[in-house]
Amino acid sequence: MEILYTAAALQAHAENCRQAGQRIALVPTMGALHEGHLQLVRAAAAVSDVVIVSIFVNPTQFNNAEDFQLYPRLPKADTVLLEPAGCTAVFLPSVEEMYPQPTVMHFDFGALERVMEGAHRPGHFNGVATVVSKLFHLSRPHQAYFGQKDWQQVTIVRQLVADLSFDVELVSFPTVREADGLAMSSRNRRLSGEARTVAPRLYEALTLAATLVLAQQESPAAVRQAAVAHIEGEPAFQLEYFEVADAHTLQPLNAWEAGQQVVICLAAFLGGIRLIDNVVLSVPK
Amino acid sequence: MEILYTAAALQAHAENCRQAGQRIALVPTMGALHEGHLQLVRAAAAVSDVVIVSIFVNPTQFNNAEDFQLYPRLPKADTVLLEPAGCTAVFLPSVEEMYPQPTVMHFDFGALERVMEGAHRPGHFNGVATVVSKLFHLSRPHQAYFGQKDWQQVTIVRQLVADLSFDVELVSFPTVREADGLAMSSRNRRLSGEARTVAPRLYEALTLAATLVLAQQESPAAVRQAAVAHIEGEPAFQLEYFEVADAHTLQPLNAWEAGQQVVICLAAFLGGIRLIDNVVLSVPK
Repeated sequence: MEILYTAAALQAHAENCRQAGQRIALVPTMGALHEGHLQLVRAAAAVSDVVIVSIFVNPTQFNNAEDFQLYPRLPKADTVLLEPAGCTAVFLPSVEEMYPQPTVMHFDFGALERVMEGAHRPGHFNGVATVVSKLFHLSRPHQAYFGQKDWQQVTIVRQLVADLSFDVELVSFPTVREADGLAMSSRNRRLSGEARTVAPRLYEALTLAATLVLAQQESPAAVRQAAVAHIEGEPAFQLEYFEVADAHTLQPLNAWEAGQQVVICLAAFLGGIRLIDNVVLSVPK
Repeated sequence: MEILYTAAALQAHAENCRQAGQRIALVPTMGALHEGHLQLVRAAAAVSDVVIVSIFVNPTQFNNAEDFQLYPRLPKADTVLLEPAGCTAVFLPSVEEMYPQPTVMHFDFGALERVMEGAHRPGHFNGVATVVSKLFHLSRPHQAYFGQKDWQQVTIVRQLVADLSFDVELVSFPTVREADGLAMSSRNRRLSGEARTVAPRLYEALTLAATLVLAQQESPAAVRQAAVAHIEGEPAFQLEYFEVADAHTLQPLNAWEAGQQVVICLAAFLGGIRLIDNVVLSVPK
């Protein structure tokens, strides 16, 4: 497994692989890898000659300086996990390597980023789209793998790829969960023992909401209310948002439409740690 | 010389050339080719194995529907000119091919696009950056050639390439002029005989301004005033803007700085046709 530190080294590596006719997969991560990431790497390795995993805690997508500073960084442990999963090259750039000069350009994704993460983390998706564009240009992947836990991110990167005709296929992979349902996240490491015990309540609320959608007895507002009540039954949570939305436009729903794909998304603070999760389902016909 | 009509055909062509180790140059144009374009093509051919010329009147960079409709379209004549200049492939896509779905994403280049063309053509540089990104992704050039006549465009594309780490070298080529100094432009075809006679006055005003800058007797405001008076001495012109600006930040100057690169830019309507031109020079040390 190669370890690459510079943009130029990654570019040269990708160009060599392309010239040799190899299929390249990119798995962009911020490190502190867990089983969710490793499943992306294994899936990529199953169909690609070359699997590049980038580990970069991207400052431009953090709106909160403390969250950026405290984000776990474990490059050595990460590297050990990656080789057996099928990674062939790790890209570990510095901030200066990715941003040698201040960025002037900004992306705006309109209504797609006026809700949920975009509404609560100003500038977040500009940072995401910028770093993803850079990584695509440096690694020239045939496929790029993203976790569905960041549903809005996947939606926005899909729009970016379509709008700028990036020659890359996006693969969105189901959220990997702990045995008790908690979505795997690098931020879970920062939960106290007590917080970790109640954390699964978030996924319980999502499955409750999904059950109510499938039963079709309740309006979107009533589904939302029931699920929010479940979370707020535990006072350790501070709910930031809970949205029942169209899975593609991400706009909140007032009524159900038969066959419509729905995403139910939440963000909540638990002992100062911000967690997100979602489920996707179709309204019964 | 190949003629390619689809994004997929261009992508496949570029990928084949890359795999064969060939150097690709892209010359993006809106067609109605003149000697200025052909010099870009010849310069590209001198150092590249493959020269792709795109001909696409990009609707998203026109803020004026009439200007878009009346923009000259001469693909057959263009194609005849290109082969002897060294073009190896022409890309002639339809609007539907370039924009198979509505674009959601918007670019914002901040202060760089709050002046001159950006200030007077709302959305223009979003359209330019979008189509240039698409063309880069489809044709994978090592080098891309742009005419200096669109100085602000070159500046913004340079920022785009840096900010998104596009793996392409920009080549900016000096403006090619008619014998009487008029900058070559596809829009010149639309000038009446009478308008064509007075049109060189724009470049006269720019050279007057440049002379005054080099003499260093006058402030930027006074230089501007003298040049504007020269244009407005001919009532057929409606001057849209005349700016004496820093060549890199594009912001208007209040004073000279020794060694500073200065761009003097203008846009004017002449008989309903909008013409732009500029000169670049250094303030004497």
